[in-house]
Amino acid sequence: MTNVTPHPFDPLSGPEIELVVNFIKKGHGNVNFHVVSLQEPRKAEMKAWLEDPQRAARPARVAEVVIIEPDGKVFEGLVNVSGPSIIKWKPVHGEQPIITLDELASVEHGCRKDPKVIEQCVISGVHRDEMHKVYCDPWTIGYDERFGADQRLQQALMYYRPDVDNCQYQYPLDFCPIWDPIKKEVIAIDIPEVRRPVVRSPPLEYHHLAIERQGGYRKDLKPIHITQPEGVSFKIVGTGRELEWQNWRFHIGFNYREGIVLNNITFNDKGTVRPIFYRMSLAEMVVPYGNPEKPHHRKHAFDLGEYGAGYLTNSLSLGCDCKGAICYLDACMPTQTGAVRKIKNAVCIHEEDDGILFKHSDFRDDSTIVTRARKLILQQVFTAANYEYAVQWIFHQDGTIQPDIRLTGILNTYVMHPGEDTHGWGTEVHRGVNAHNHQHLFCLRINPNLDGPNNSVDMVDAVPSTDPVGSPGNFYGNAFYAKRTRLETAAQAMTDYNGATSRTWDMINKNKLNPHSGKPISYKLVSREVPGLLPKEGSLVWKRAAFARHAIHVTKYADDQLYPAGVHVPQTSGEPSRGITEWIGNGSESVDNKDIVLWHTFGVSHFPAPEDFPVMPAEPISLLLRPRHFFACNPVMDVPPSFSVTPSQITGKGKGALDATDRVSKLALS
Amino acid sequence: MTNVTPHPFDPLSGPEIELVVNFIKKGHGNVNFHVVSLQEPRKAEMKAWLEDPQRAARPARVAEVVIIEPDGKVFEGLVNVSGPSIIKWKPVHGEQPIITLDELASVEHGCRKDPKVIEQCVISGVHRDEMHKVYCDPWTIGYDERFGADQRLQQALMYYRPDVDNCQYQYPLDFCPIWDPIKKEVIAIDIPEVRRPVVRSPPLEYHHLAIERQGGYRKDLKPIHITQPEGVSFKIVGTGRELEWQNWRFHIGFNYREGIVLNNITFNDKGTVRPIFYRMSLAEMVVPYGNPEKPHHRKHAFDLGEYGAGYLTNSLSLGCDCKGAICYLDACMPTQTGAVRKIKNAVCIHEEDDGILFKHSDFRDDSTIVTRARKLILQQVFTAANYEYAVQWIFHQDGTIQPDIRLTGILNTYVMHPGEDTHGWGTEVHRGVNAHNHQHLFCLRINPNLDGPNNSVDMVDAVPSTDPVGSPGNFYGNAFYAKRTRLETAAQAMTDYNGATSRTWDMINKNKLNPHSGKPISYKLVSREVPGLLPKEGSLVWKRAAFARHAIHVTKYADDQLYPAGVHVPQTSGEPSRGITEWIGNGSESVDNKDIVLWHTFGVSHFPAPEDFPVMPAEPISLLLRPRHFFACNPVMDVPPSFSVTPSQITGKGKGALDATDRVSKLALS
Repeated sequence: MTNVTPHPFDPLSGPEIELVVNFIKKGHGNVNFHVVSLQEPRKAEMKAWLEDPQRAARPARVAEVVIIEPDGKVFEGLVNVSGPSIIKWKPVHGEQPIITLDELASVEHGCRKDPKVIEQCVISGVHRDEMHKVYCDPWTIGYDERFGADQRLQQALMYYRPDVDNCQYQYPLDFCPIWDPIKKEVIAIDIPEVRRPVVRSPPLEYHHLAIERQGGYRKDLKPIHITQPEGVSFKIVGTGRELEWQNWRFHIGFNYREGIVLNNITFNDKGTVRPIFYRMSLAEMVVPYGNPEKPHHRKHAFDLGEYGAGYLTNSLSLGCDCKGAICYLDACMPTQTGAVRKIKNAVCIHEEDDGILFKHSDFRDDSTIVTRARKLILQQVFTAANYEYAVQWIFHQDGTIQPDIRLTGILNTYVMHPGEDTHGWGTEVHRGVNAHNHQHLFCLRINPNLDGPNNSVDMVDAVPSTDPVGSPGNFYGNAFYAKRTRLETAAQAMTDYNGATSRTWDMINKNKLNPHSGKPISYKLVSREVPGLLPKEGSLVWKRAAFARHAIHVTKYADDQLYPAGVHVPQTSGEPSRGITEWIGNGSESVDNKDIVLWHTFGVSHFPAPEDFPVMPAEPISLLLRPRHFFACNPVMDVPPSFSVTPSQITGKGKGALDATDRVSKLALS
Repeated sequence: MTNVTPHPFDPLSGPEIELVVNFIKKGHGNVNFHVVSLQEPRKAEMKAWLEDPQRAARPARVAEVVIIEPDGKVFEGLVNVSGPSIIKWKPVHGEQPIITLDELASVEHGCRKDPKVIEQCVISGVHRDEMHKVYCDPWTIGYDERFGADQRLQQALMYYRPDVDNCQYQYPLDFCPIWDPIKKEVIAIDIPEVRRPVVRSPPLEYHHLAIERQGGYRKDLKPIHITQPEGVSFKIVGTGRELEWQNWRFHIGFNYREGIVLNNITFNDKGTVRPIFYRMSLAEMVVPYGNPEKPHHRKHAFDLGEYGAGYLTNSLSLGCDCKGAICYLDACMPTQTGAVRKIKNAVCIHEEDDGILFKHSDFRDDSTIVTRARKLILQQVFTAANYEYAVQWIFHQDGTIQPDIRLTGILNTYVMHPGEDTHGWGTEVHRGVNAHNHQHLFCLRINPNLDGPNNSVDMVDAVPSTDPVGSPGNFYGNAFYAKRTRLETAAQAMTDYNGATSRTWDMINKNKLNPHSGKPISYKLVSREVPGLLPKEGSLVWKRAAFARHAIHVTKYADDQLYPAGVHVPQTSGEPSRGITEWIGNGSESVDNKDIVLWHTFGVSHFPAPEDFPVMPAEPISLLLRPRHFFACNPVMDVPPSFSVTPSQITGKGKGALDATDRVSKLALS
C-alpha cells in the first residue's frame, strides 16, 4: 500500500518518517529525534477537502519535528514532506521535549556504573557485586525547583532483583539518582532522611515458572471459542485506515503521543451521513502520587505528554490480547537516532456480541421481540514503566461511543520497614512494599461536529422542582426535571462533577432541533468516575496539570491546541501553567454556537490493597457519549432480531414469526 | 430430581406449592393465593446446619402464604410443608398483598365493558365500537388518599391500538379508571382538567413486519459464534442449585418477589473456604415519575414489592436472550387460583471471555505475561408492564461481584397535544407522546459474612491532606488519603453518595486483619450511579420509599427483615413508613462488629429522548463489590495465561516460555 496516496489524516508512513529524518540530518547532522509525526491538516483546509475531495486542494503532508542536538539544544519545526522543505524551524528555550525509549533505556546502565549510586546501593543493603541486579525506572524528573527546565533530567526510581526472573517492583530501594541524558551522568542523588534498607523477603511472582513451582495453574477453565465463519461486519476502506461498521464511519489515526486518534466520525442516519465528532482522542493524563515526603512529590507522570501513549504502545498478539476475528493496524515511530520502529499490531479491531440490544414482551398477548447487540472495539495497550493501560474505543450500534480504559500492570512501589506506619499515604501491599496512593486522571479531548461545527455545551443537573411539597405546582412533591445551564464562555465552562445531581454535559447544536422533542440535537457525556484532582490548589501538580482542575473545560477550536498540559511537558513548572489555561486566558471568549473543543478529565483514585500485588487484576473505567435528541427515533430497529412475533401472529399460532435464533448456542451440562 | 431432599435454601418445588395450596384450600376454600413461597430458614438454625449438616437438625421446609378471601379479607401465615401444618395464621388489616398476574389480566377486560370507561374513550376520540382496541396496563394504585388501603384497588393506565399489531404505548389515553379487583368493577375514573384526545399519528413500530415493510433489516451483520466444545467451567452441585466456578460457590435461590437470591457466597482461597456474603439480592425498587399533575403522582411503581420480580420473570430462550453454552434454572410460582406455573428457563447461567485479566511487559527485557479473564453471569429478565429489566449477577475470577442491570422495553407514556409545552416534566418522544421524567431506583440488600458474621461498615472518602500547601506535612501540596468513617449506629449509617470524594463504603471484619496491609479484610462497594431520590422530603414517594432516601442504610440482621418498603407494599401511605424506618427506629442500635445488613439504593434518572422510542436500546447500570485487603495477594495468578515469558527465557531465546495462545482466533480481512 506504500504507493497509495495517503489519506490526509493517515499517520506518517515509515518511508515518510525516513524521508523527513534524512532531510533533517542533512541540515543538522546526527541529532536526536524526539518527534517526527504528522501535523494533522489545518481544519479549514481539511474540511474543504472532505466536503469536495475532487475539487478542493488535498492538504499537504506536513511533519512536526522536535530534535535535540548533541549539546542539548532543542529545535522544533514543520517539514513539508513533499519536497521535503522546511516550513518552520526554531530553537526552543527552557522547555524539554518528550522522552524517548532510547533515553529510558540508557539511564539504568549509567546508574549501575556510577560510584555514588553504587555507594547508595551498598547502604541500602545491596552488595557491590550485585549491581547487575539493580534496576531503575527512569521517569522524567517532573519538576524540581533546584534544576528548572534548562537542563534535561530524569529521575531514576531504583529497584533490586535478587534473581533475573524476580519482579523488581517487590524490591524498591530508597534513594533516587538524578540523571542528565545529555551529559550521560548522575548529577545528584536524593537521599531520604530516614533510610530504609532493601527488604529481602521471598519473591512473590506471577510468571509461569513461579506458579508451576507452587503447584501449577488451575485446571478447571474450559476454552471459549469465538469465531466469525462468514467474516467480520466491518470494512476497512480508503487507504486502509477508514472504518465502516453499522452506520459508523471514521478515520483511525495514531500518533506518538495520543496513540489512537479518531477523526471525522460520522453516522449514516437512514441515508444521511451525519457528522458527530471531528476529532476524538485521549489528549493527556496525569498520575499524581499522594505521599508528601520528598522526593515523591515529583511522582506525577504525564504518561502522554512526557512519554507518549504511542511510543509506549504494545505490539498486540492474536489469541492473547485479542480474541475472535481481529484486524490489526501497525504504527511507525521514529527512534531517537532517526530509524523507523514499526509497532506491529499497535491497534486491534474486532466486534463482540453485546447481550440484549432491546427486548420487549407484552404480558397480555405474549408478543415478543429480542434483538442482540453487537459492539465494535478498537484497542491499544500501552506500558508506562510499571503500569499497563488498555485503551478501548467502543462503538455501539445505537450511536453510543464508550471510551473505556482498563488499568493493569504493576503498582509503583517504595520500600518501607515491614510494619511501619504508612500514615495513610500508602499501603503495605506486601512485606516491606509501600504502594503510594495515586490517581489516574485522563483527559478526553472531543471536537464535536454535531450536524456541523457550531456547537454548544449545556451542563445538565437532575433536580427536584423548586416548588415545595403541597404547593399547587408540586402538590405531592414528586416533580423533578433536568436543569440545563448553557456554558456560554470558556470561564463559565470550567465545571466540576456533581454526583448529587447526576450531572452530565450535553454537546448540542442549537441550530438543529429534533423533529419530535423540539430539543437541540445532542450527544450527552455520561461520566461517573470523575474524582477531581486531589492534590491541592497551588500544589505542584495542580500548577502543572491545569486540565485536571475541572471535569470539564470548553475552548474555542484552534488548530494546534491539542495538548492541554502544553506541547513540551517534561520539566514544566506550571508557572505559568501551559496549555489549556493559556488558551482560556481570562475566559471571556464565547464558546456558544462555535466550533468548540470539550476537554473532560476523568479517572480513578487508587488506594492500593494487597489484591493489587504483585500484578493488578484489570480495573475498568468507562464513560458514555450517548445520542440524545440526535435521532428521530430508536436507530437500531433495523438490526435483525433473534426473534420477533406480533400479537396477530400469536393468535395465528405463531405463523409468520421471525425466528433467527442462534442455533450454535447449546445447553450446558445437559 | 423430585425425590431428592431439597437444600434448605431451595425454592418451594411445584409439588411443595401444590401441597401447601391444597392444605390451605381444605381449611379456607377457594381463596386467591398471592404468595406461596419458601420462608428461608432462620439464620441461626441454618448456620448450624451449614456448619455441620451431618449432625445439626435440617431446617424445616416452611412456606409463607398470603391469601385473599373472595370477600377481600387478607390472611397471612406460615405452613410447615412436611405435614403440612399451620405454624402461624392471622388476618391482615389495612394492608394489601402483592398483585398477581391474574389480577393484572382481569382489569383490561373489565374496563372495556364499563359504560363510564366507554364514555371516556369516546370523549378521547375512540369510537364506541373500537373498545376491543382499548388496552390498559393495570398498576397498583400506589397510594390515593381518597381510598386508603382497606379497599384493594388498581389504577388502569389507558391506551389504544389502531391495529392489533401496533404498540399501544404510542397511543395513550388521558383518563385513568380505578378498578376494584374484589368487586370486579370500576369504582372511579380520574379525568384530567385539560382533555387531550388520542393522537392518531401513523404507527412507529419495531416488530419485523413493520421493519420489513420499511425496506427490511440491515444485511451487513455477520454471525458471531461462541462455543465451548469441552463444556463449561462451572458445575451445578447438590440439589441442582449450588454453583461452583473459579473458587466461587453459592446457592441460587429464586422467589416471587426478588427473583434471584444468592445465599452463602463463599470463595475458596487456596484451600480455605471463606464466607463472603450470607445473602444477596435486589430487595426492592421504585420508579418515581416526575410529573406533578394529578394523577401522575401515583406513578411510582415498586416493581418488586407490588408486582414481584419473580412473578414477572421471562422464560428465556437459548440463542436469543442467551448466547454460548447456557445452563438454565426453572422457577415454580403459584397462580392466583393456586395452580403451579412453571417459568421455564427463568435464570440463565453462562460464562464469557472478559478481555485482559492482567498484563505486564517489562520495557527493558521484554518479559511479558498476558492472562485473559473469564466472567460468570447469572441473568434474569423481568417485564414490568412496559419496561424490561435484565438483571445480571456477574462473578469475576478476582473476587469481584458485579450486579448489573440493563433497562430496555418501552417508556411509560402519556398523551399530549402535539407540540404542547411539557414544562420540563417530560419529553415529546414522538408526535403527541409525552414520556415523563422518571427514576429507576434499585435497593441491593447484602448480608455480609466476611470471614464470619461480625462485620462493620466504613464510609471512605478520597480527600486531600488537611495540611496546607507549603506546610511541613504537605510542602508540595500533593498529599491525599482515604478518609475512613466507621458507621457505628444505624442512624450514622444513613449516608449519601458524594461524587466529589468518590465515596465508597467498605464492609469489613475488624477482627481479621490482612497479613500484609494490617487493615481489616473488606469488600468495597464501588457504585457511581447513585442519583438519590429526586422527589422531595415529605413527598408521597419519599414517605413510601424510605429505603431510597439514602444511598446506604445499615441495620442489624434480623430474620424476616427482607423488604425495605414493607412486606405488603401496595397502597401503603408511608405514614408511618414501613420496612427500613421501622427497623432502624431511633437509630441508636450499634451496627459495628455485628451481624449486619447493608442496603444500597442506586439507579438512574431518566429524562426520555426520541432515541428511547418506540423501544429503548438497553441502558446499563453497574456496580462493583471488590475484595480489598481480603486476599493476601492477587488471587488470580494461577489463572492459566495466554502467554508468559520471563527475562531469563528471553535471554535464552524464548526457550521455556508458556504459549497457550488461542489458536481459534483468526485475522480478519486478511
